Amino acid sequence: MTPATPGHAAITPIESAAIAARAASRVLATLDTSTKNALLTDLAASIAVATPALLVANASDMHAARTAGLADAKIRRLALTEASLAHLAEGLRQVASLPDPIGQVTRDDVVPSGLRVRRVRAPLGVVAMIYEARPGVTADAFALCFKSGNACILRGGKEAAASNAVLAALIHAALARHGLPEAAITVVADPSREVLRTLLGLDAHIDLVIPRGGTDLIAFVREHATIPTIQHYQGICHVYLDAAADLDMAERICVTAKTSAPAACNAAECLLVHRAIAPTLVPRLAALFAAAGVEVRADADAHALSPTTRPAAPEDFGREFLDLVVALRVVDDLDAAVAHIRRHGSDHTEAIVTDDPAAAARFTREVQSSCVLVNASTRFNDGFQLGLGAEIGISTSRLHAYGPMGLEELTTQRWIVEGTGQTR
Amino acid sequence: MTPATPGHAAITPIESAAIAARAASRVLATLDTSTKNALLTDLAASIAVATPALLVANASDMHAARTAGLADAKIRRLALTEASLAHLAEGLRQVASLPDPIGQVTRDDVVPSGLRVRRVRAPLGVVAMIYEARPGVTADAFALCFKSGNACILRGGKEAAASNAVLAALIHAALARHGLPEAAITVVADPSREVLRTLLGLDAHIDLVIPRGGTDLIAFVREHATIPTIQHYQGICHVYLDAAADLDMAERICVTAKTSAPAACNAAECLLVHRAIAPTLVPRLAALFAAAGVEVRADADAHALSPTTRPAAPEDFGREFLDLVVALRVVDDLDAAVAHIRRHGSDHTEAIVTDDPAAAARFTREVQSSCVLVNASTRFNDGFQLGLGAEIGISTSRLHAYGPMGLEELTTQRWIVEGTGQTR
Repeated sequence: MTPATPGHAAITPIESAAIAARAASRVLATLDTSTKNALLTDLAASIAVATPALLVANASDMHAARTAGLADAKIRRLALTEASLAHLAEGLRQVASLPDPIGQVTRDDVVPSGLRVRRVRAPLGVVAMIYEARPGVTADAFALCFKSGNACILRGGKEAAASNAVLAALIHAALARHGLPEAAITVVADPSREVLRTLLGLDAHIDLVIPRGGTDLIAFVREHATIPTIQHYQGICHVYLDAAADLDMAERICVTAKTSAPAACNAAECLLVHRAIAPTLVPRLAALFAAAGVEVRADADAHALSPTTRPAAPEDFGREFLDLVVALRVVDDLDAAVAHIRRHGSDHTEAIVTDDPAAAARFTREVQSSCVLVNASTRFNDGFQLGLGAEIGISTSRLHAYGPMGLEELTTQRWIVEGTGQTR
Repeated sequence: MTPATPGHAAITPIESAAIAARAASRVLATLDTSTKNALLTDLAASIAVATPALLVANASDMHAARTAGLADAKIRRLALTEASLAHLAEGLRQVASLPDPIGQVTRDDVVPSGLRVRRVRAPLGVVAMIYEARPGVTADAFALCFKSGNACILRGGKEAAASNAVLAALIHAALARHGLPEAAITVVADPSREVLRTLLGLDAHIDLVIPRGGTDLIAFVREHATIPTIQHYQGICHVYLDAAADLDMAERICVTAKTSAPAACNAAECLLVHRAIAPTLVPRLAALFAAAGVEVRADADAHALSPTTRPAAPEDFGREFLDLVVALRVVDDLDAAVAHIRRHGSDHTEAIVTDDPAAAARFTREVQSSCVLVNASTRFNDGFQLGLGAEIGISTSRLHAYGPMGLEELTTQRWIVEGTGQTR
C-alpha cells in the first residue's frame, strides 16, 4: 500500500468508491464471525424473496444480449433461472457455514529468544474483481470477500448490468439492515475501459485485482495494473490418453469433460491421443462426440483415422472453445503430449488417462499446471470438488493462490510476536 | 505465464537470458535434494577459498563509491569483510541444511467423489530480484532460489558491480562442476533503466519480480512491471511507548531498535510516546540517544520536553533514515498512535511497549503490518529470528508472502488429483 499521492486533480467517482471501500475494509477486518454469518444468511433469504425481480432484470439483459447478437456460449453464461438463483442462495448459506479464516493461527511457537511467534490469517483489505457475463459471480464474490473480511469492488460485464444492479441493491439493503457499511461492496456500473484503467491504478486503496476472463482482458490488466493481480485466465485444458489407457474410461472422461459444462473454464478443449491406441480410440471418440453433438477438429493423423471429423486449423490448438467443440491430436508419446501442453496450455488443468503408474508419475511431475489429474475429468478442478467448500474462481497465476481460490486464498498471513523486553 | 508474442524485433540479451533461465528452471524443478545441497556446500567452500579475490573486488567498489560521494549508510551496506564473507558462506551451508520445500505435501485427502487430492509445493519458476548495494544478497538470493527449485535473475546495484561479478563467477563455476545449467543464475551487469524496463515486461519467461529498495525503485517497478511483484519496500518502523509501558524496557527497546543496525529495514525510524509518560520518558530517551550518537528529530511537544533534540520537519515523519537518526513524537493515546502509523507507516514492522494486555491486544488487532511486536524490538522481524531458517528479504506486499520470505515463500502449491475414472 502506497500513500495516496496528493494531487490537484478532482477525485473520480471510482477513486472515491475505492477510498470508501478502504474505510469499510477496516470495519470488516474486525467483525465477529456470527455477524458475518447472519448477514449472509439474511442475504440468501432476500434473494429467494426477490427472485421474480431478479428474473425480470435478467430477462432484459438476455433480450439486449440477443439483440446485440452475443454468441450462444456467452448468452448461456448470462442466464439466471429460478433453479440457479436457489443454488446461488444456497451457496451464500454454505459460505456462512464455512469456518471463518480470519484470526486462524497457522503457527504458534516459542523461538530460542523466548519470543512467542504466531502467524495469523488476516484479510487482504480491498479486493477488486473484473469478470464477464455470469451475474451469479456478483453474489458469490461478495460472499467470499465478506466472509474473509475484505471489502470488494466488482466490475461485471455490461451484458449483465441489469441483473447485477438488482443483486447490488439487495446486498446494500442487507448491509444497511445489519448496520454495516454499504461500501463493503461496490458494483461498478460504468463499463468503459477508461474507468477500468483508473481502477487498475488505485494501488493506494485496492490490495488485489482478480481479472477473470479471456486474452484481451488479461492483457489489458497486465498492461495497466499497478495493483497486485491474480489472473483467472482462460482454461485451455488438455486430456492426454496414454498408450496404457483403459479405453472405456478414456471415452467416459473425454466425453463428460467436454459436454457436462462446455462453457466452464475446466472443460476439456483438446484431447491428445497416443499413437499406439489412436487407431482404436479415435474412431470411437469421433462416433461418441458426433452422437453428443460435439464438433471434433482433428489434426491430419486423427482426421485420417476418422474422416467424419473436421480438419483442424493451426489456431484450433491452444484455443478455449467454451462450446461443443473439441480439438483432437495424435501424439507420438508422453513427451510429445507434455511438449504440446507446455506450448499450448494455459497452466489451468490437465489430465492423463493411463493404467501405467510410471506414466502418471512422469505426467504429474512434468506438467506443472495448477491442477493435474490422473484418471479423472478436468471438471474436478473446482473449489467444491477439491474440498475448499467454495470458490471465487480458478487462478492461473502461480503467486499467492494457484488453482481454485476459496476463503483462505482471500487472506494473507501476518506475524504477531510477544516478548518480555527482548532487544537486538 | 503468457506465450511470448511472436515479434519481429531482435531478441535482446536480457530476453535471451530470461529464455535460458526458463529452460534452466525446468531442470531445477526436478533436482533431488542431495544434488542441491551438494552444490550449496561446495559453493560455501569456494567462497572461503576466494575470499581474497572477493575483498579486492569489494575494495574497488568501495573506492568508486567513496569517489562518487555515496552516502555513508549506503557505503556501510556495500562493505564486505572477512567476517561477513565467512558469515555468508555459513549462510549457504545453513540453507543446505534446511528442509527442501519442493514436493512437500501440505494436504492429502480423499474427497467424497473418491478422488485422492494432494496439494504439493512446487517452484515458482524464474524469480527476478532487483536490489541495491548489499552484495551479500547476491549469494543469499541465489541459495534460496536454487534450494527452492527456482532459476534466478539478479540485478544488484551498480555500486556493487565488481563484487557481484566475482560472486557470479564463483556460482557459475560451481554449477558447471556439478553439471548444472549456468542459467540457474543470471547476474545482470547492465545497470540501465532501459534494461530494467525490458526485464519487467518479460512476463512470458519470468514468474515473479522482487524489488527490494526505496520509493523510486518501487514506483518504477509498479509502473512498468507486467510480471507479478512482491515488494520489499522500505521499513518505516514505529515503536509506540504506551502509557502503561515499563520505562526501563521502553528505553532498552528504543535504543537497540535504532542503533544495533541503523541501515537495516527493520530498524526503528520513529518513536511515538504516550503523553502520560512523555515528561519522564522523553528526556531519558533524549539523553540515551545523545550518548549513543543518535540525532533525535522531535515534534514540538517532545522538543519542549527535551530542548537538546532537534525540531523535526514534517517530512521527518514517514521517513526511512537508514542512519543514526530517529523521529520522536508525543501522541495523545493509542488511537493517535494507530492513526499516525496508518498514515506514515509502510506496513513493515511496528512494536508496542506496554504492560497493559488490553492495549497490546488493540494494537496488534488494529495495526495490520506484516509483523507487530509486543514488548520486543522491531529488529526481530527477520526470517532467522522468527524461525524460517533464512530469508530473502521482508515483503511489504500482502499477497503471497507478507513479512519475511524464506524457502517456503519462494514456492507455490499445485494440486495433484488421482482418480479411478471419475467423471462429471
